[in-house]
Amino acid sequence: MFTNVEHIGIAVRDLTASTQLFATILNRDAYKSEEVASEGVLTTFFQVNQTKIELLAATRPDSAIATFIDKRGEGTHHIAFEVDDIVAEMARLKAAGFTLLNEIPKQGADNKLVCFVHPKTANGVLIELCQDRGAASGKV
Amino acid sequence: MFTNVEHIGIAVRDLTASTQLFATILNRDAYKSEEVASEGVLTTFFQVNQTKIELLAATRPDSAIATFIDKRGEGTHHIAFEVDDIVAEMARLKAAGFTLLNEIPKQGADNKLVCFVHPKTANGVLIELCQDRGAASGKV
Repeated sequence: MFTNVEHIGIAVRDLTASTQLFATILNRDAYKSEEVASEGVLTTFFQVNQTKIELLAATRPDSAIATFIDKRGEGTHHIAFEVDDIVAEMARLKAAGFTLLNEIPKQGADNKLVCFVHPKTANGVLIELCQDRGAASGKV
Repeated sequence: MFTNVEHIGIAVRDLTASTQLFATILNRDAYKSEEVASEGVLTTFFQVNQTKIELLAATRPDSAIATFIDKRGEGTHHIAFEVDDIVAEMARLKAAGFTLLNEIPKQGADNKLVCFVHPKTANGVLIELCQDRGAASGKV
């Protein structure tokens, strides 16, 4: 089940400048920064009620964030939904004809297991499914 | 204060097809549809915890949604934050140098007063502030 909009990912060029910018817009400080080396991204997180705003900057030219900004400029990159059973939701979406970008859940930021659904099958929206690793332990 | 991610707006070409698509992705039905004639849009809403997914389709060629899709294709169009005092938040952001697309709150979908912040001043993200008309009554 999709239980929450866990975060919205925004691709930015300059993480320091954008963190300051969104701190001003949201009128609060970022509560953490984290590198996801496997994805080539540096992230900063803000909390707004039960949803996080995640700023993402590339750490290398072949990062998906660098490619996205080259093609489309800065802006909203993905919408992440928290799910209660990522393996079951991946199987459900695959059976319904959606293209998954990874066939098994992978490690994402914020100690989550994640899977992305290809935007070509979702009206141009890159959708992430995510589940806390703790909640998922033993299942994958 | 920014109190919640109230909704995420997604620009689509075919509202009927996309409503079915997102019903499949989210595994739930849309709970309402609404026309905002002043903006030239038809909308469909899904609820995921405290955040709505709002699909937006243009009803005429000069709608902002038609222009967006012509330029960028379908995809995430805006992020809407619920605020507790839209007039105060608009004044705060204007004083901080952000460009507001409307100088006074205007009527949006879902019985909300809304204001948009220009994406050029927010890393390419179109940000909407919104407040329930009931909550705002007497203030504007």
